[in-house]
Amino acid sequence: MAEMYDVCLDIGGTKILGVIFDEKKKIIYRLKKKTKKDGDDSQNVEKVIVSVIEEMIKNAGIKKNQIHAIGVGAPGVIDQDDGIVLFSPNLPWRDYDIKTPMEKKFGVPFYIGNDVNVGVLGEYKYGAAKGYKNVVGFFVGTGMGGGLILDGRLFTGNKFKAAEYGHMILDPEGPMCNCGQRGCLEAFSSKKGMSAYIMQQASRGRKSQLADVIENGVFRSKFLKKALEEKDVVATEAVDRACHYLAVATGNMINTISPDVVIYGGGVIEAVGDIFLKKISAEVDKYCMPSIRTTVELKNASLGDDSVIYGALAMIRDIRKEKK
Amino acid sequence: MAEMYDVCLDIGGTKILGVIFDEKKKIIYRLKKKTKKDGDDSQNVEKVIVSVIEEMIKNAGIKKNQIHAIGVGAPGVIDQDDGIVLFSPNLPWRDYDIKTPMEKKFGVPFYIGNDVNVGVLGEYKYGAAKGYKNVVGFFVGTGMGGGLILDGRLFTGNKFKAAEYGHMILDPEGPMCNCGQRGCLEAFSSKKGMSAYIMQQASRGRKSQLADVIENGVFRSKFLKKALEEKDVVATEAVDRACHYLAVATGNMINTISPDVVIYGGGVIEAVGDIFLKKISAEVDKYCMPSIRTTVELKNASLGDDSVIYGALAMIRDIRKEKK
Repeated sequence: MAEMYDVCLDIGGTKILGVIFDEKKKIIYRLKKKTKKDGDDSQNVEKVIVSVIEEMIKNAGIKKNQIHAIGVGAPGVIDQDDGIVLFSPNLPWRDYDIKTPMEKKFGVPFYIGNDVNVGVLGEYKYGAAKGYKNVVGFFVGTGMGGGLILDGRLFTGNKFKAAEYGHMILDPEGPMCNCGQRGCLEAFSSKKGMSAYIMQQASRGRKSQLADVIENGVFRSKFLKKALEEKDVVATEAVDRACHYLAVATGNMINTISPDVVIYGGGVIEAVGDIFLKKISAEVDKYCMPSIRTTVELKNASLGDDSVIYGALAMIRDIRKEKK
Repeated sequence: MAEMYDVCLDIGGTKILGVIFDEKKKIIYRLKKKTKKDGDDSQNVEKVIVSVIEEMIKNAGIKKNQIHAIGVGAPGVIDQDDGIVLFSPNLPWRDYDIKTPMEKKFGVPFYIGNDVNVGVLGEYKYGAAKGYKNVVGFFVGTGMGGGLILDGRLFTGNKFKAAEYGHMILDPEGPMCNCGQRGCLEAFSSKKGMSAYIMQQASRGRKSQLADVIENGVFRSKFLKKALEEKDVVATEAVDRACHYLAVATGNMINTISPDVVIYGGGVIEAVGDIFLKKISAEVDKYCMPSIRTTVELKNASLGDDSVIYGALAMIRDIRKEKK
């Protein structure tokens, strides 16, 4: 019997990361592609996904019938049971059934889940959260995502909408968030939140090298790394503020869940995770019950940019196991 | 075969409520007793518990061998698996195995859990949260307790310490809480928090009928009811502030869990729950994601003072079912 493979995708607002896993969970092919910004209606994004999968299969030198299943992480509220994207802030899909056309096209099972949920699942199965039972994940990127593993299973709540603690309010009189609320964690600690702080300081005449590289309201993580290395004062203030509120939110989640581990992942952590973890760890004791703090570890994600694709693989393999 | 009964207790810092349930879940006997304040070491509290159980059995006119099991809710962090009270703010027990002596004394299974966890379980099995799958409970009393039912089961987290979102920080610069943190939900919205506000206003010369009835830092709920009925201005301010922060905390928990229902219980809700629910409901939309808000209901507990004893019964019956 020919070797079988799984195709896993991490679909973002501007790019798609795709990989092919062999049966030993080894990545045998990897592809990154931009999704077009112009005219990206649902059909167009779908076309890009199809072309990425086809290109990967072709370039990896395998046959279509050697594909076992396709697993996907994508931003938004996603009905994992039925493969329907209910709402996505960065994709042109509303109540969109992506599963049916994809299974028709490729003739294999297609699974899709919220990217951060799936990313935390990836860290739980194959990364930094392996071996723990209750996991709280914070993914720090353009926004602030969350993911919960409770009693060893991905917890998605009613209608797959759980773990939106990126919008936990930490100061009802705080800065506006894109979600329409004030003082959310995301408004302080995401790239958007840090960028807003930097622009605000710039408008008051304070200089920062990051102010010049903010596009569409965000900087790229590599520029944050550079700014911190070069001791940019305003950038350091933005990071201190971000870590302070992440420490408060971490304390709140420790009190709420009593997890075994809190995991920090996402682009910002991939770039400057050591600095974040150090600052958060130094403060978190102030914001949770001492008796609960003693049984929780704080760690950075270990799969880097691949958390989501490993999570997609975990999703495929979990369902395959259940069906056996 | 003789009819069998379950004995259920709600152990508080100052009183014990005990009931005997028949097999049809009907309460056939009820007893309330004060725990002595003086010299209440662990043995003494244990003696009171034993005497309550013996008195109930005697007065109910049943025999010891007609008791199936004993179920208890008590304040603190409690190892539900082994029946060990790890820590309790209001009872003189530390890492105290209460299960072994009780099972020896009465010769039947003895189960114990955190009172608010058990109370939310009671509401889930027999009260206002019946038929839902994911439940967030807030119990408003002297302090602020929490309880989580997730995917249809009581969620206790690592070492039974979950659901302490009474100490969720809503304002890092807010008023001191007894837990040593600032700006916890409990510091705003519990009887302690409301009492602190009233005393603070009294010290500034503002009059409130509640100020005169605060003892050991708390008023009794019936006095709060009276003060609100008589439109006491400072008491109304304290309640508005309590409900504002409860609305923020409710929003945060809705974003975090995406529950089917949020339940409010405890002494304050038993006394003035309609007022609280109305005020919280009027504000909560501001503090959670609209898409998550649409699938969650807010309700008051329906079992009143009996939430915990019904929860203790649920605990007994769940374990009995598992063993069958």
